[in-house]
Amino acid sequence: MTRIAPFLAACAAITAVPLSAQRTAAPPTAADPKVAALRDKALTDDTAYQIVEGLTTEVGPRMTGTEAAPRARAWSVARLKAMGFKNVRIEPYQLPVWSRGTESADLVAPYAQKLHVVGLGNSGATPAGGLTLPIAYFATYNDLALAADGSLKGKIAFVSNAMQPTQDGSSYGSQGTARFVGPNVAAKKGAAAIVIRSIGTDHGRGPHAGNTNFEAGVTPIPAAALSVADAEQVERLVKLGKPVTLKLVLDDRQVGMRESGNVVAEVPGTDPKAGIVLVGGHLDSWDLGTGAIDDGAGVAITAAAAKIVMDAPGTMRRTIRVVWFGDEESGGFGGAAYAKAHAGERHATAAESDFGADSVWRFESSLPDAAKPIVDRLAVALTPLGIIRGADMPHGGTDVGPIIATGVAGIDLNQSGQRYFDWHHTPEDTLDRIDPAQLKQNVAAWTAMLATVADAPEEIGPIAPKK
Amino acid sequence: MTRIAPFLAACAAITAVPLSAQRTAAPPTAADPKVAALRDKALTDDTAYQIVEGLTTEVGPRMTGTEAAPRARAWSVARLKAMGFKNVRIEPYQLPVWSRGTESADLVAPYAQKLHVVGLGNSGATPAGGLTLPIAYFATYNDLALAADGSLKGKIAFVSNAMQPTQDGSSYGSQGTARFVGPNVAAKKGAAAIVIRSIGTDHGRGPHAGNTNFEAGVTPIPAAALSVADAEQVERLVKLGKPVTLKLVLDDRQVGMRESGNVVAEVPGTDPKAGIVLVGGHLDSWDLGTGAIDDGAGVAITAAAAKIVMDAPGTMRRTIRVVWFGDEESGGFGGAAYAKAHAGERHATAAESDFGADSVWRFESSLPDAAKPIVDRLAVALTPLGIIRGADMPHGGTDVGPIIATGVAGIDLNQSGQRYFDWHHTPEDTLDRIDPAQLKQNVAAWTAMLATVADAPEEIGPIAPKK
Repeated sequence: MTRIAPFLAACAAITAVPLSAQRTAAPPTAADPKVAALRDKALTDDTAYQIVEGLTTEVGPRMTGTEAAPRARAWSVARLKAMGFKNVRIEPYQLPVWSRGTESADLVAPYAQKLHVVGLGNSGATPAGGLTLPIAYFATYNDLALAADGSLKGKIAFVSNAMQPTQDGSSYGSQGTARFVGPNVAAKKGAAAIVIRSIGTDHGRGPHAGNTNFEAGVTPIPAAALSVADAEQVERLVKLGKPVTLKLVLDDRQVGMRESGNVVAEVPGTDPKAGIVLVGGHLDSWDLGTGAIDDGAGVAITAAAAKIVMDAPGTMRRTIRVVWFGDEESGGFGGAAYAKAHAGERHATAAESDFGADSVWRFESSLPDAAKPIVDRLAVALTPLGIIRGADMPHGGTDVGPIIATGVAGIDLNQSGQRYFDWHHTPEDTLDRIDPAQLKQNVAAWTAMLATVADAPEEIGPIAPKK
Repeated sequence: MTRIAPFLAACAAITAVPLSAQRTAAPPTAADPKVAALRDKALTDDTAYQIVEGLTTEVGPRMTGTEAAPRARAWSVARLKAMGFKNVRIEPYQLPVWSRGTESADLVAPYAQKLHVVGLGNSGATPAGGLTLPIAYFATYNDLALAADGSLKGKIAFVSNAMQPTQDGSSYGSQGTARFVGPNVAAKKGAAAIVIRSIGTDHGRGPHAGNTNFEAGVTPIPAAALSVADAEQVERLVKLGKPVTLKLVLDDRQVGMRESGNVVAEVPGTDPKAGIVLVGGHLDSWDLGTGAIDDGAGVAITAAAAKIVMDAPGTMRRTIRVVWFGDEESGGFGGAAYAKAHAGERHATAAESDFGADSVWRFESSLPDAAKPIVDRLAVALTPLGIIRGADMPHGGTDVGPIIATGVAGIDLNQSGQRYFDWHHTPEDTLDRIDPAQLKQNVAAWTAMLATVADAPEEIGPIAPKK
């Protein structure tokens, strides 16, 4: 009974909107049959798995700056052309490249044990022969931030921030500070190096790679992440009161500017003025795994969904543009280059898939009010997939963030984050981590989104640019 | 109704046994209250977790032949003395030692990718600079066995035996042939080296170590295991028709005879003639992990159970002897040395825990018929832990196998094998793999077994020695 009052209020609200809008303003109760048919077809389609299997097997790891990066772009062009997309091309840009060399970490005291480690992107190098120093232990990033200036001289700062899995992955933002800014803070306080507990939710031996950044004027120190299990071993030794000494070798360095490129493919629409529907993921990966969940899945899901729409009878109103961004991991240079190159083009919406291959559980969008009936229809089309409607606060992401920031509406199809950070940026990010059934649910969600948005008769105007 | 006839037959059988046995021949319906009390106390006891945490943290990996092995024995003596055991000592013996050096494997063609690899125990070494050769692919060990003599010259045999989890771990025996004898077979057929898919049930990046053996007269070739995920990557490339070339570096070698030792501790009984109740696990571990499930758990479970019995009021009839065998992984030298050193002593039963830390689901025993009432009582005491009675065909194990083979009754407390081979011999065998609740169930089962067997009034005579 308590639900009737809001419902009546909603009905009253409908009577207050202009007649021209009334036809679509009442929330639909059933999905458009054409959209539903494409969505359900996607649930039996293997295209996405074939793409992620091909990319991870035939190309393998494809870190920015390695020989595999241009090989990945060439593979992608051939694959997207073979799938039937139009205007398939590479859009090149330049970016600074950091390169990983020999890396190792060993427990030296209280006894010798080989540890599993990875250098963080933009890490400085250790001297020849490595650094062998006692650690200064900090249970959390906040403890490091409170350390006195100069107190870390002659020491390796060890930061043991623990991360818990969350549905929306928000703990990555809060606990990831140890990696994002910990090295910069430790450098400013005089540390010789910094080693962190991997930013991950597993308890395994695979270290989690990832970028860090140093402020201008701060000399980068060696910065690395131990696997969670190795960090927990160090934590236990610290709790036993044993002084811990580590030997750290990181032969990493900046190698200067190199070429990267975004791979673009299109499904042309009938109305160029209606704006582009941009979808994609990133083609690059970290080097430890083969980039299956990060982000082979994302490029596969978005392209597979676009192909299902492309192969359906008829033509959509809006052009669907699939972009496999050439660089996300080393600093989001792909997304920035795209926004710069396409600043003059009208985009209706932008959306990326970059959170693994587990099921979509929620969607968020920032379409302007006049286009909200599209969102209402999308909500109905996604419901059979178990997807709920969020609070219209899309995150956007690193790849599409720059174009969204210019005033383009964003759409998020949020995947479950419960397992993602078990494997994110680790050697374990391989094909076996992909659940084919959940991958298909993703493709179905993206198919429903594309079919709904690309063919919507409503205008999708710009929104207020982000500051 | 169909069950009544066997029951009546059993009743008839009871009337046929001598009067002296009738008092115990009817299966008991409730556990001995003293045994039940100790069993239930074990379910709340943290001792086993403390032992495995201490051993894996304070000692770490402890491979035979490394500096950690004597450190592990010293730690163990101190720990067992501190727990209150009597006659704590190291019983030394000599064994041949194989040593791991630098190891790596790289995919060279169709493209470069670093693979996760481990050399197998007793592997030969590659030449300086490694071996870079095409692979000869065999889907299973049987396919390798069928290869023509000489057909593998100039090639690295690649054997892709896949293993599935089973409750009893029996797939290790059947699928492990690729590791146990594959290298010997490949060497005899002229292969330059052999690489196998790890003998494991996971799909991760941690390779599974383990021993192999070469016949007398066969020169050991380099022999290694790729992680399952890496092997699956190679399999996919082979299925795509891509010729695969590997670069393999294994700087491994035999280093000669060294000293090892079994750590022995006792809970003296009141009747030396009643025979020793021998329990234990092995102290050594492979070097990739910290030996938590293999076999920190086993030494911890058996010692914790013995301590609970030791700390109870009164004294048991039989001496309980806890042995932490110094070497199991490199060839079972600890168990063989024990059997040789203690050949003249009467043992009532022998049992080892060496299958991880997951719950016990079944027990098996080979007690002589006159002692079967003990087994009946044990069955009742174990039932509340969810443990079923098997077919009286204990496996024994590598550590207690040699003494059992002399005619000693064996008892198995079988743990679930569903997860064990995900982590067995890998870098992932660390403390985090131990489920404290299941560990306690193990201690409760072993406590019930010790309290039942050590204090049983029945004689436990020898059984027929194994041939």
